Amino acid sequence: MQNIWVHPRGARYLPMSEDIVPKIQDLLRFCHSKRVPVFYLHTTKRRDLADVGVFADIKPQTHDPDDEWSNFEGTIGAEFYEPIKPAADDLTVKKFRYSGFYGTQLENLLRAMGRDTIAIAGVATNVCCDSTARDGAMRDFRVLFLSDCNASFTREEQEATLNNFNKHFGVVMDSKALTAKLQELE
Amino acid sequence: MQNIWVHPRGARYLPMSEDIVPKIQDLLRFCHSKRVPVFYLHTTKRRDLADVGVFADIKPQTHDPDDEWSNFEGTIGAEFYEPIKPAADDLTVKKFRYSGFYGTQLENLLRAMGRDTIAIAGVATNVCCDSTARDGAMRDFRVLFLSDCNASFTREEQEATLNNFNKHFGVVMDSKALTAKLQELE
Amino acid sequence: MQNIWVHPRGARYLPMSEDIVPKIQDLLRFCHSKRVPVFYLHTTKRRDLADVGVFADIKPQTHDPDDEWSNFEGTIGAEFYEPIKPAADDLTVKKFRYSGFYGTQLENLLRAMGRDTIAIAGVATNVCCDSTARDGAMRDFRVLFLSDCNASFTREEQEATLNNFNKHFGVVMDSKALTAKLQELE
Amino acid sequence: MQNIWVHPRGARYLPMSEDIVPKIQDLLRFCHSKRVPVFYLHTTKRRDLADVGVFADIKPQTHDPDDEWSNFEGTIGAEFYEPIKPAADDLTVKKFRYSGFYGTQLENLLRAMGRDTIAIAGVATNVCCDSTARDGAMRDFRVLFLSDCNASFTREEQEATLNNFNKHFGVVMDSKALTAKLQELE
Repeated sequence: MQNIWVHPRGARYLPMSEDIVPKIQDLLRFCHSKRVPVFYLHTTKRRDLADVGVFADIKPQTHDPDDEWSNFEGTIGAEFYEPIKPAADDLTVKKFRYSGFYGTQLENLLRAMGRDTIAIAGVATNVCCDSTARDGAMRDFRVLFLSDCNASFTREEQEATLNNFNKHFGVVMDSKALTAKLQELE
Repeated sequence: MQNIWVHPRGARYLPMSEDIVPKIQDLLRFCHSKRVPVFYLHTTKRRDLADVGVFADIKPQTHDPDDEWSNFEGTIGAEFYEPIKPAADDLTVKKFRYSGFYGTQLENLLRAMGRDTIAIAGVATNVCCDSTARDGAMRDFRVLFLSDCNASFTREEQEATLNNFNKHFGVVMDSKALTAKLQELE
Repeated sequence: MQNIWVHPRGARYLPMSEDIVPKIQDLLRFCHSKRVPVFYLHTTKRRDLADVGVFADIKPQTHDPDDEWSNFEGTIGAEFYEPIKPAADDLTVKKFRYSGFYGTQLENLLRAMGRDTIAIAGVATNVCCDSTARDGAMRDFRVLFLSDCNASFTREEQEATLNNFNKHFGVVMDSKALTAKLQELE
Repeated sequence: MQNIWVHPRGARYLPMSEDIVPKIQDLLRFCHSKRVPVFYLHTTKRRDLADVGVFADIKPQTHDPDDEWSNFEGTIGAEFYEPIKPAADDLTVKKFRYSGFYGTQLENLLRAMGRDTIAIAGVATNVCCDSTARDGAMRDFRVLFLSDCNASFTREEQEATLNNFNKHFGVVMDSKALTAKLQELE
């Protein structure tokens, strides 16, 4: 998660992201202790807007190149939020659109590691998380959408996304259910 | 639109699809008269389930290979719904996942035709239509999601999808606004 | 393999394809007996040229829509060459560019079947076969390029492609080596 | 071009790359003066080999993580070759497989800039350059493969690749022909 969305000064700050920070921290500790690979997706854009395509028009509010708290390359807004950032063995994948699978090496990394299941955590539930989760499912990964580790702008968006995902794309569960499942598998 | 979703006997019949049929018929007449290219997406699956991937588990209700009203290759359920089917010059693109852009030639066809804008019509709003629309936006097409030409299972899903799309991915409008806009451009 | 390239009347007939036909027939018998999945790639184009993109200019000689021995949809040239065509359990994947992985469901099918290795047979070595083989390698499949089951237009092209592939993309072997290897693995 | 291939100490040094350096420098000057966008592709791999997939086996000679002159992230070998490196307005695209279009944002950048034609320069002709050029053609870009701005390991590889490309994928020309053409278009 990057400052633009999770830091209180971020240009697209989601207040509900506060609730998920401790949950994700716990999950990360668990994953590191069990050697479950952790991927961070990192979205940036160029200040000359060359790589933003139609989104400069669709979402002008995040495309002001002078805004240090948006997610332009090299700005404070683009940095990972301090309390949750990659540990030594975690993998960072750069992306430039909502989906972490579109135009990235994420699928290759997962295949090379022999992984067939992914769990989604982050912000925003209804935008990047959902788009990444859908794309994972279409590529035949089993996708677990973690209800208490994803945050949205509103309660309604959160629920609509989780309900829809659970019906059509994969499985919604909370992080406790995931860690219990992983422990059971050992 | 295929019988599985739009025909009353379809395995995944959406009653709300009835409302959009006349709207889409009008839109098709308009497009044909103005020589706006029309694409039909056609989703089928093999009876041996070789191409369904994880979805056989996620949605067992549509993966019974004996069901003639699901969308297995060669069944009645897979056929286009009679009142809305491709005219001579329309293009049909086969797809096998929710998104019409994933693993298909849709992007190439649009590029070859010099098109930079697409309008989405069909079912289900919150599944195939939304996934196709999102993928179009990420590929830098301007995507218009037609509020009165897409149907969902429930009113809530319909609204949640349209609101979310309009905020983050593209533009929501109705078919009257689209045809007015196209006439204005002539 | 389709008539356009393998049938003596085909618009792009490769005389060297004759040598590989019996080799591929033997290999198919072996694969069927061992239940090794067999995929046929099938390339067609629309008579209105809507899906051919830049290739109508680059290769005008195969884009005459009146030519029944090119590979337009529904023509004799597009059909599989009679002596080598899909058996009941073989899978056919439609493609529309040189690579069998580009804009198709091939990767999903291979993943769903748990396959991590592919062997390439067909025509032309230096065009479709090489492009498909390279794309497979980049997607992290182990790719075996079968020296006696791929044919080219000239001996030089054949050798250049095989040498290059073996150095940078995967492994070149003949079909006897492949079947020996598979028998050894049983 | 990165040191691994072009610097005399590079782990995969191509002596023939020396000939193309002045040609590419001239071409860059021309492009900058005419505001033709310039893209640099940059290929790196992780020292833990997590992102190299099957290539660790296929090409062990470039996968020794202690080799500072291979192209591992952060090494001298991964850096751009000093005499040819990105100017202020040039765009750099990270890639991790041979093709510059696979798993990257290259296509989006080209589309967003309204470009339909690309010219290929670099090393090695028969590996990264050819794979990128083929992928560009399959995505319907007009691809110009510059005969005097691409270098290979041997003269035979160079010729085989250029001949094959010119017959099936796009157009081969030298940089003088390209600049003449661009000047003519002004």
